[in-house]
Amino acid sequence: MGKKNLEVCFSPALFRRFENPESIVVIIDVFRASSAICTAFENGAEAIIPVAEVEEAREHKTKGVLVAAERDGNVLDFADFGNSPFNFTREKVEGRTIAYSTTNGTQLINIASSAHTVVIGAFLNISALCGWLTEQERDVVLFCAGWKDKFNLEDTICAGAIGERLMESGKFLTICDSLHASIDLWSMAKGDPPAYIEKAAQRSRLRAKGLDDCIEFCLQPDFTKIIPVKENKILKAMGK
Amino acid sequence: MGKKNLEVCFSPALFRRFENPESIVVIIDVFRASSAICTAFENGAEAIIPVAEVEEAREHKTKGVLVAAERDGNVLDFADFGNSPFNFTREKVEGRTIAYSTTNGTQLINIASSAHTVVIGAFLNISALCGWLTEQERDVVLFCAGWKDKFNLEDTICAGAIGERLMESGKFLTICDSLHASIDLWSMAKGDPPAYIEKAAQRSRLRAKGLDDCIEFCLQPDFTKIIPVKENKILKAMGK
Repeated sequence: MGKKNLEVCFSPALFRRFENPESIVVIIDVFRASSAICTAFENGAEAIIPVAEVEEAREHKTKGVLVAAERDGNVLDFADFGNSPFNFTREKVEGRTIAYSTTNGTQLINIASSAHTVVIGAFLNISALCGWLTEQERDVVLFCAGWKDKFNLEDTICAGAIGERLMESGKFLTICDSLHASIDLWSMAKGDPPAYIEKAAQRSRLRAKGLDDCIEFCLQPDFTKIIPVKENKILKAMGK
Repeated sequence: MGKKNLEVCFSPALFRRFENPESIVVIIDVFRASSAICTAFENGAEAIIPVAEVEEAREHKTKGVLVAAERDGNVLDFADFGNSPFNFTREKVEGRTIAYSTTNGTQLINIASSAHTVVIGAFLNISALCGWLTEQERDVVLFCAGWKDKFNLEDTICAGAIGERLMESGKFLTICDSLHASIDLWSMAKGDPPAYIEKAAQRSRLRAKGLDDCIEFCLQPDFTKIIPVKENKILKAMGK
């Protein structure tokens, strides 16, 4: 087989330029949706339903589904807990289906639905993800969530960390400047990712809301070997 | 006066998130529109009319305006010359008005029109531009042209070079991850910009079309002290 194409998309507002029905799209939202979803599956969650609207989350609650939902950093009154990965303990999530309220994340999953396969990527599952991607013989788009359509540093360095490994596998080629930039930024960040990410806007936002306790955890490689994959409109642990 | 906000926009498709009627927008299209426009003014051009469509360029030609126009690297049959900065010699352009055919550049200028002031930035006028920007007491958006809505490296390192100087002036603050990334990429590129830009997609495109003779020139600082500025729908040399 010939080499496959590898690209990085920095924002949902740019994704239409990356649409490819034969590709695998990796959704990267390091702070915090991708990391929370990986944590939930590692701790035994059965399925995750991404929901965009508060009312939709409330409806799931009435059906006995666990609900993780915040607005502006406050846990919603009807929710079981908030969006931090630290909330998804084995005690709470094992064997359960969880509605995860994430406006941006749900939007990304919808936008990416034209792809062949949609998976969730994070530092937390990077080795398992990269190993799997190199075996698929498919084009790959690393799709950074960003923030309000804007580029962000944390998703970009994660795309760079994944991109570096994929290029080193020899299975991919690229003519994508966003990939080169991601790999170069990762090369500056990799010595000490938490220090590098100090200047990121989302780092400041989470600190201001007292939600930054999970930063170092989210930047840690290989907490899990699970790759969350989209099946219809929900996320499952691949192969389970 | 308080510090002013400095941001970088990586693509026309993202600009609506940066709209600010009080800001100065710096349009950066290093390969080749920004560089060609700076060169034309340094060599005495009176005005430049950015045109999006071939037919519009043809119409200008019938009115006696000089026309610079290419499609896919071929000079159009009715045009006086192509889009390379090297075509804008003093002999050809002094005292003349030039219609410059650039689909992307014209689109950017239109998109940015909601701003207080729109200027053209390049390595070729970087010191004059940065000196002027630090004196304006206005928010600044460095607006990278990109390519077909995608991020590109050459415009980003130019934004980084400008951004680094503006931040060092002490007149600006930022919470923009795109600015941090641009400055970091510039820090990797600045030792040898032509070598860094070897991996850029547009570098390859220009080489494939034999249009890459101007690359080193476009990456050279301070060929001119002129800042091209938009007045109504045309570009003039600021202060002239």
